[in-house]
Order: sequence, then C-alpha cells, then structure tokens
Amino acid sequence: MKISVIGAGSWGTAMSKVLSDSGHEVLLWVREKELLELLNEQRRSYYIEDLTLPEGIRFTGDIHECFEFSNLLFNAVPVQYIRSVFGRLNLEDKTVVNLSKGIELVSLKRPSEIFKELGTFRVVTISGPSYADEVAREIPTTVVSAAENIQDARFVRDIFRTNYFRVYSSDDLVGVEISGALKNVIAIAAGIIDGLGGWYNTKASLITRATVEFIRLGSRLGAKPGTFGGLAGIGDLIVTCTGKYSRNRAVGEELAKGKKIEEILKNKKTVAEGVPTCKAIFELSKRLNVELPISIEVYRVIYEEKDPRIAIEELMTRKQKDEISWLQNL
Amino acid sequence: MKISVIGAGSWGTAMSKVLSDSGHEVLLWVREKELLELLNEQRRSYYIEDLTLPEGIRFTGDIHECFEFSNLLFNAVPVQYIRSVFGRLNLEDKTVVNLSKGIELVSLKRPSEIFKELGTFRVVTISGPSYADEVAREIPTTVVSAAENIQDARFVRDIFRTNYFRVYSSDDLVGVEISGALKNVIAIAAGIIDGLGGWYNTKASLITRATVEFIRLGSRLGAKPGTFGGLAGIGDLIVTCTGKYSRNRAVGEELAKGKKIEEILKNKKTVAEGVPTCKAIFELSKRLNVELPISIEVYRVIYEEKDPRIAIEELMTRKQKDEISWLQNL
Repeated sequence: MKISVIGAGSWGTAMSKVLSDSGHEVLLWVREKELLELLNEQRRSYYIEDLTLPEGIRFTGDIHECFEFSNLLFNAVPVQYIRSVFGRLNLEDKTVVNLSKGIELVSLKRPSEIFKELGTFRVVTISGPSYADEVAREIPTTVVSAAENIQDARFVRDIFRTNYFRVYSSDDLVGVEISGALKNVIAIAAGIIDGLGGWYNTKASLITRATVEFIRLGSRLGAKPGTFGGLAGIGDLIVTCTGKYSRNRAVGEELAKGKKIEEILKNKKTVAEGVPTCKAIFELSKRLNVELPISIEVYRVIYEEKDPRIAIEELMTRKQKDEISWLQNL
Repeated sequence: MKISVIGAGSWGTAMSKVLSDSGHEVLLWVREKELLELLNEQRRSYYIEDLTLPEGIRFTGDIHECFEFSNLLFNAVPVQYIRSVFGRLNLEDKTVVNLSKGIELVSLKRPSEIFKELGTFRVVTISGPSYADEVAREIPTTVVSAAENIQDARFVRDIFRTNYFRVYSSDDLVGVEISGALKNVIAIAAGIIDGLGGWYNTKASLITRATVEFIRLGSRLGAKPGTFGGLAGIGDLIVTCTGKYSRNRAVGEELAKGKKIEEILKNKKTVAEGVPTCKAIFELSKRLNVELPISIEVYRVIYEEKDPRIAIEELMTRKQKDEISWLQNL
C-alpha cells in the first residue's frame, strides 16, 4: 500500500519505519530543509539517534506530492499546527490517521474534530504508550487505533504487520483523544514532582488521582469509561509520567527548578503539547463546569507563575476521608 | 496513645517514626540482636540510610513486652513469617494493623485472614504507594486503611497526624490485600522488562494488562472493583513497577540477566514477598479457575526456569484484536 506521512518529528519518523517494515511504500513530508537534506543524504533523522531509515521510505519537502501519492495520510504534525499545515489542502478523499495528542487552543477541539472541520470524512487516531525512540528500536509496543466506526479502526489496525508494533482497535475516538490530551498535562505535574526531589510515593498518588480527571472530563464529552483503563488511558499515562523520554515531564522538572515557561520552551527543538493543551483544558473545565484539580494547578504554575511546590503541597494535603476512586463513580 | 510495632525491617522502622511524629509512644520489637544494639546505641536503622529515629521510640527484643505495652499492634513481619512470630501469642484483645503484603503459601490466605485464624477480632490493613525510605524522609505519601468494618478503618486512619503521611479509609479489606499481593508479582515481571533493556513502552503495556488480573482475581474473592482504581490498587502497582526502591522489581531485573532465583535471594538482606506470593497466586488461580497470564508467566520463570525473554515475548505477541479493558468487564 502507498502511505504518506505528514511531519518528520520523532513520531512521524518512527511511524514511517513501522509502516515500511509492514511492507508499505512510504512518502514522508519534511518541513525543514536541513532535515530533508540529512534524510536524503544519510537516511538519518535529527530527532532519533542511531536510526537509519529503511530504503522503502522516500522524503519530500512538497506536501502536495504526499497528497498525490496516497489517499491515506498519517498525521504527525502537532495539534496546534494542524490547521496551518492542512488548512488550504483538499482533504475530501483522504483517510487521516492522526498521531498527535492534545486540544487545540483556539477552538478547544480534539485532533479528529479539527480534521473533520477541514473536510476529512474518515479519521482514525492512534494512541498508547509509545515512545518514538523505542518504536524505532523495535521494542515491543502496543497501541490503540480508534475511530467512531470500528471498521475504520480495524482497517488501520490491519495495516501494521510487524512483531514489535501491535495495534488494538477501539470505537471510542473521544476517550482515546481525551486521554492523549490530558496525560500530557498530568505529565507536567509528574515532572514537577520529579524536579522537587523524585518522590515516587507522591507521584504514584498523583497519577492515581489523575485518573479521576480522565473519567470526569471524558464522561462529559461522551467517552467510554473502559478506555481509561486501557492502553491509551492508564497505559500512556504511566509511560508519560514515569519514563525518561517524555518532553512534557521534562518541562515539569524545569518548572520545579524555578524556570519560567518562556525560558524552558526557548531551548526546545521539540513541541511539549501539554503546555498549550493545559490552557485548553482549563478553558474546557470552565465551559463544562468539570472539576479537574491537577490540570488546573498545572495551568496556574505555567500561566500564573504559581510556585510549583505550593501547587503540589495543596494537591497532597486535603482532608483525610474515605477513599473514593474513579471506578466508584461509574 | 501507646502503640507496639512488631518487626524492625524498613517498613516497621519508618512506620514507628510516623507514629511517633503523630504524637504516640512507640515500642518497636526487633528480632535481630545486632540491629537492636544499633538502634539502642545510635537510634539508627540498618535498613534505612540517614534516618535517626525520634526519642519517643523505644526498642525491645522481647515481643511479650510489646504485648503488655499496648493492645494496638502494628505488624511489619513478612506474610510468610506471621504464623511463626504470632502463633504462640494471645491475640484475643489485640487490634492488629497489618502492613505486610502477600499471600501465605501454606494456606493461600491473606494477612488479615491469618491474623483472624490466630485469634484477632479486629484487623486493619494499611496499603498504598509508600516506599519506606521516602516515608522516613517525610516525603508526601498517601495510603489506604482498610477493614471489613469501616469504623475500624477510620479509627486507624485518625491515628495519623502528620502532614507527610495521609491516610484514607476503605471497607474493602479483600481488595486492598489482593492488590498488595498481586502488585509484588507484577513488579517481578516489570523488573524482567527492565533487565531486558528498560523498555518503557513494553512495561506500560504490561502494567495496563495486569489491571485485568487484579479485577479477575479480586472479583472472585469478593473485592470491590473501585479499590483497584485507587491508591492500594493502581497507585501501589505504579510505584512498585516503576520506582527504584522495589525489591520485587529488582528480583525481576536479576532474573532477566539469567540468574537463578536461589542465587538472587542468597545475597538479599530483605524479603521479596512476590517470590512466595507468585506461587500462592499460581495455586489460587488453579483452585479458582481464574486466568492470570502475567502472574503465571512469573511463576514459570521463577519455579520452572522458563526463559524470561520468551515469557515476555509470549505475553506481548498475542493476536491483534479489539481492545477490551478491565473496566468493560465490570
């Protein structure tokens, strides 16, 4: 099958390799000139160390070429840039497989909602615990392919034919996308705890409480609770909050050390989706009147310069009472 | 209040400090002579670095003194040794607060069941993400106090009056104890993955699937599903599978490097409860006819010398299908 991958960051690059390893012809759109040269000359990525991309992958700087090459597009453009990259293109005949996680700040919409607005009829989102670096190294990884119509999710699932990248299908597109958005926000809180001293007990407690926010926000938007117990939910939350590669967790670590957000983002070559998404989540929580204490504290630390130590302390020192877990609210 | 703590391993020692910091008089029973001397002379523990115990704690090598001192006993003796330590003592008037996690191999019983057999009328179990080292350093920690009768759980909850150690109450003693037992088994599997190469994606996938085993076994034994979404469930599972202090995770790491279990345990000064407990879980799964694939693979690696790499590969490479999470089975 011919497949175009839009966006050559770490995830787009790793995904191109998985698709190529699955026997497909891949055309990868690369926005930056230097990156395109590096790929064309050495088949090496700027974002993933020690990866040489298989011969089956071709590279282009012209997105129209990708649109002509295939009607199946994998999107690896960060959520806040989807509209500017795809806005003037005709998506009517395209199936979009979205890889990005977050909520668009200007519209408070999920990635699949944005693509539908832009004219796509068929959108599938892939999500789950999947560091690009590990996928590129062929480390066993499992993810979820989600669509409103389960047949679309299964179609995408069956595109993958490697031993190391395994895909399960789901019809809960809302739950999978909300999980992907929120986990990046919670990862910033987890990073703050790491920055304060690497407190495992505190972080586990925070992750446990965060699941309540997934359920609360998700349920209001029509998600199925089961999704939060799965790979795109608790699975991705765990890897993002505890693994060493998470960009959002890294942002939290630096916040804990007293750095301002502008300073932190200035030196990053990659995008930390949790930063804009936590503002979108803050707006959503007001609009929907949903209580999301951890996400709101992350918002206050980033956008209102609240002391991160005080934010964590306030989250931890509530009145002792009977434990109520999210499962009891179902 | 006067409180006796039985067992001066890392958790018994840290708990003595928390109880002392909460304003109680504590008498700590220390089995080993050298340890008792170290504590009496320097107020320092062999098991927790850089901790000097508060003046309010006294130490004894005579367990009868602890029984005379108070009717409130905290148990920090490992599950497999409870019967030999408490078996000949009169527990009739005692309230036991159990801190140990596991299933007794000879009886397939939970800690509170053992204590009831030994004559206790009131048993409460405390569990949750709580590395003793961090608790001793006053790092914010939250746990669950569980009893069949919620009043007992609340009574124990209210014993604690520090800012750093916060306790929630629960009436699901079965769920809390089953979680505590299973998480140590899953931590061995997580450690195997760490030993094979520190694969975050794989480990997050495994932890996610493990929650299905919690629900399956717990439900059969009368646990409430909500408990598995709480601190003693997913919270403790996360810290044990991802934190650096877990003894059970460390056992898995060494198994992955090809060591035999006898060799691994020979050099340990501490007890890895997951090792006997996984055998007990294996027996329970047969008796109850409950499918627990991860726990069974851990059993096979430890007791049947199965290659750990093959065990993990078999767990990861199942047929791709629709994702079914544990929440959908409720």
